[in-house]
Amino acid sequence: MPELRKDPIHDRWVIISTERGRRPSDFVTEERKPVGGFCPLCEGNEDKTPPEIMAFRDGTRPDTPGWSLRVVSNKFPALRIEGNLDREGEGIYDKMNGLGAHEVIIETPLHHETLATLPVKTVENVLWAYRQRIVDLRRDSRLRYVLVFKNHGQAAGASLEHSHSQIIALPIVPKTVAEEVEGAKIYFRYKDRCVFCDIVRQELQQKSRVISENEGFLSVAPFASRFPFEAWVLPKKHYPRFEHMETFRYGQAAQILSETLRRMNRVLRDPPYNYVLHTSSFLESAIDDYHWHFEIMPKLTRVAGFEWGTGFYINPTPPEEAAQYLREVNSDGSQL
Amino acid sequence: MPELRKDPIHDRWVIISTERGRRPSDFVTEERKPVGGFCPLCEGNEDKTPPEIMAFRDGTRPDTPGWSLRVVSNKFPALRIEGNLDREGEGIYDKMNGLGAHEVIIETPLHHETLATLPVKTVENVLWAYRQRIVDLRRDSRLRYVLVFKNHGQAAGASLEHSHSQIIALPIVPKTVAEEVEGAKIYFRYKDRCVFCDIVRQELQQKSRVISENEGFLSVAPFASRFPFEAWVLPKKHYPRFEHMETFRYGQAAQILSETLRRMNRVLRDPPYNYVLHTSSFLESAIDDYHWHFEIMPKLTRVAGFEWGTGFYINPTPPEEAAQYLREVNSDGSQL
Repeated sequence: MPELRKDPIHDRWVIISTERGRRPSDFVTEERKPVGGFCPLCEGNEDKTPPEIMAFRDGTRPDTPGWSLRVVSNKFPALRIEGNLDREGEGIYDKMNGLGAHEVIIETPLHHETLATLPVKTVENVLWAYRQRIVDLRRDSRLRYVLVFKNHGQAAGASLEHSHSQIIALPIVPKTVAEEVEGAKIYFRYKDRCVFCDIVRQELQQKSRVISENEGFLSVAPFASRFPFEAWVLPKKHYPRFEHMETFRYGQAAQILSETLRRMNRVLRDPPYNYVLHTSSFLESAIDDYHWHFEIMPKLTRVAGFEWGTGFYINPTPPEEAAQYLREVNSDGSQL
Repeated sequence: MPELRKDPIHDRWVIISTERGRRPSDFVTEERKPVGGFCPLCEGNEDKTPPEIMAFRDGTRPDTPGWSLRVVSNKFPALRIEGNLDREGEGIYDKMNGLGAHEVIIETPLHHETLATLPVKTVENVLWAYRQRIVDLRRDSRLRYVLVFKNHGQAAGASLEHSHSQIIALPIVPKTVAEEVEGAKIYFRYKDRCVFCDIVRQELQQKSRVISENEGFLSVAPFASRFPFEAWVLPKKHYPRFEHMETFRYGQAAQILSETLRRMNRVLRDPPYNYVLHTSSFLESAIDDYHWHFEIMPKLTRVAGFEWGTGFYINPTPPEEAAQYLREVNSDGSQL
């Protein structure tokens, strides 16, 4: 069973993943994986993954070909769904069992497509799958947060080339999420307004950091971007939870997400990136002070000692310039 | 002038470093630099760096050969020492000028040596240089924190191969430092003991996570290690500030730091790593609740979306195993 351990100084938890236990030689010999070769996420290889938890299929049987999207358990899960938390101390330290869920969303049967090249309709299906999994995992009262994220490209930590996202459901609210919720609460107490609503309003007025916009959503290069070409996708209307929107909003969200990734793809030539869905934790009942959004972080620079030591970032590309590059490229790749 | 910008939700500052302004093509064409070639940090190339701020020399003139260590300004500084902070708002956002210092400590005139191969006496000189720079920068009342760190190896963000550390002095106390100080304070209020003193005590009792030890210092794989083979070097005695120790302690610190890096070097074959010196900020007057230390983080796995989204880490190597590997290797490279 993996173990969750808490740092005694910071409110920071770590998963000690014995499942993936690695000796020094595993790191020393680690090489870039060759491109191509066998892919367990491709259509026809359904028996090479754990059984599917859900899928979008046209009448075909589970774990056979004929799907447009599949969700399966991670074959090497960082957390396990069976068992109890068994919270306990070890001297001054605290730990519990690594209980939770770790799932993989296979976004397409096609090996060479990405969210930046697939049709908007497919991206919308991916968002529907996120929604369905969040709603389902919320029913497990042992869990407190569902993290949805994507690693694209080897430099961003993707171990498989085939387009996929991951879901990790946790028995604790992670530090960064708790801090963000707390930060938004402090702002709300002071101003009686949602900070994200204020960001949306100011960005739409100033325009200099807006990347793209439709009726319901916008994407911006945030004012205090940590990374070059960082982008956030936010609903214009105040929705605290990703899973609680009217049906028609998911298509709008997919359109902006897809367009933003397509623009990044053109300007930065298929950059490695991570994105993370930020949404309210299961414990929050407040609905006024939090506002779900995506944060997309291209991996163009290396995070080094300074960033680790301080939580302070050096960004060599002003967000106003990044937004301009992304805005001015045509989705067909030509500069306007 | 670079700009400091604050995220309106998190208590997080970002340096928008216009000095290093980078366009998309700079990222797209970024390649691994060739090993070898001209090195501005080597002896004889003193005119290729900004003038030295301090040096350890045997009677030779500044900015000429004949030194064992030099400190110079960074040629591409993230922050600038001239000017005022000029704090101001931009709608809901906050910013100030990027005032501060950014220095490079050239640890040796020899291009092919590293802190893991240089004699302990040289490592001690590096610590003395850290101390001298901290003491000097503290005199500038505009500054609140001095961050000393090292990036070793390209994967850890080092842009030059020649062994060096960096110093960044900041006009604000960075988020991670403030959180650590606050975490230590909370523990102290609850227990009336320093949390780091408690860690030292428990680690010396349990022994399973201790890597090495001498009269004044120990290095351990921390209980909640975020990264495989993470290591902390702590003084056994309670010292809040790195710069306030008795003279003889610096040699002891250098011995443990050097030995820990040497053991890592053997077990992981010259891994890329970052280390960060954690010490009290200039603003803190309390001396009971903080305890300086080094945190060494080998870069063996890629930090991906999960870590960025949560401040939650997945570590595939239990610290007890990491400590055992590091303990059991001989400094001459043979397994005991």
